[in-house]
Amino acid sequence: MLNQYDVQTKCLVALDSIIFGFDGEVLKILLVKRGIEETATTWSLMGGWLRPDEDLEVAASRILTELTGLQNIYLEQLYAFGTPDRDKISRTVSIVYFALINVLDYDEQVSDSFEARWFSLDDLPTLLFDHGDMIRMGIGKLRYKAAQHPIGFELLPEKFTIPQLQKLYEAIFNTTFDKRNFSRKFLSTGLLKKLNEKQRGHSKKGAYYYQVDTDKYHSQFNSFLNFAKV
Amino acid sequence: MLNQYDVQTKCLVALDSIIFGFDGEVLKILLVKRGIEETATTWSLMGGWLRPDEDLEVAASRILTELTGLQNIYLEQLYAFGTPDRDKISRTVSIVYFALINVLDYDEQVSDSFEARWFSLDDLPTLLFDHGDMIRMGIGKLRYKAAQHPIGFELLPEKFTIPQLQKLYEAIFNTTFDKRNFSRKFLSTGLLKKLNEKQRGHSKKGAYYYQVDTDKYHSQFNSFLNFAKV
Repeated sequence: MLNQYDVQTKCLVALDSIIFGFDGEVLKILLVKRGIEETATTWSLMGGWLRPDEDLEVAASRILTELTGLQNIYLEQLYAFGTPDRDKISRTVSIVYFALINVLDYDEQVSDSFEARWFSLDDLPTLLFDHGDMIRMGIGKLRYKAAQHPIGFELLPEKFTIPQLQKLYEAIFNTTFDKRNFSRKFLSTGLLKKLNEKQRGHSKKGAYYYQVDTDKYHSQFNSFLNFAKV
Repeated sequence: MLNQYDVQTKCLVALDSIIFGFDGEVLKILLVKRGIEETATTWSLMGGWLRPDEDLEVAASRILTELTGLQNIYLEQLYAFGTPDRDKISRTVSIVYFALINVLDYDEQVSDSFEARWFSLDDLPTLLFDHGDMIRMGIGKLRYKAAQHPIGFELLPEKFTIPQLQKLYEAIFNTTFDKRNFSRKFLSTGLLKKLNEKQRGHSKKGAYYYQVDTDKYHSQFNSFLNFAKV
């Protein structure tokens, strides 16, 4: 039986959200300015406190909207961070969420009236507490998802070119791919629908636009077990 | 800037661990008896409270050992559960961990001096609070892992036969597979090393034992991107 006198700890519960965005070139993260002391400012993830009547995900969404103006963003829970001294002021457990969005789709929402700003992942400012660790874990999760389930299409516009897709993968994995290999591999997944439309303005030979075949994508999600349809 | 007067909620923080085990036939889960009121007993996951000086994972491990005798089990964080009324007595956020073990390897540790018992997933008793939801999520995670990364070998003995592997997958997915298809598919992954040893005692034609080729397994983990070695 559990010892009913076992020591219990009351903690503050915070929600912190990692918002990744891709602008077509660079992978970015949305941060807000936090004032901890009068003269110090530091940047942080979208964070706030859990309210008595709220579920965790509802709180994370509310805080995101309050700080950035962003609405209707699908937030996925990433991890709970709870080292005893992560917040020196008061014991706080933070439940971290993350989302992947296309920066260009949301530019209007993230207006100047909020103090949220996009930072390139290569060029992050000093961050509050263990938010650096949280971001590192978020990048790890993003890479894992991109490796398991081809096409991080939440980060891309609805229609995109293969070069844009390659730029995204190169940004996610901080590496470069052979252009022909990459193109062949992604086209061989059968998950891309080629559109009858070319990208204008870049060169004479514009690249074709593609869309994700979402039905096929969902049916192939658990790819290894596809043999298992009995 | 964050509103420094924003409502904060102090919560109790609990850790609950889902321990899955496979005994060669059936997928099971380890539960303990909880006494909430004098005359009522109900079963629950391995749960307890976070201590002031502990990190979350350390707490989960400690609680697991205190309740079951199990030591050195690798616990993976699954999800934070935090609906406001999940625990009617006091607002509690529970951080849920899970582990996969081979029941037969740990039989001696889970002794009668503890009140932990294995239950078949098909035959669960009444559970405390939202522990049923937690278990459902744990099963979902197990299925996801099994579908993405073939061979849930933590649940199997170090050497196993293909029929045993098939039984495991059938238990995880609550389905049946075609024997020849299954065997062919798993052998084609190249992740299994055939041993020069047969299983005795079942029939004249004993099945060969196999082991996981762990080097190959780890190198193929992010299978889709294996083309990406530049």
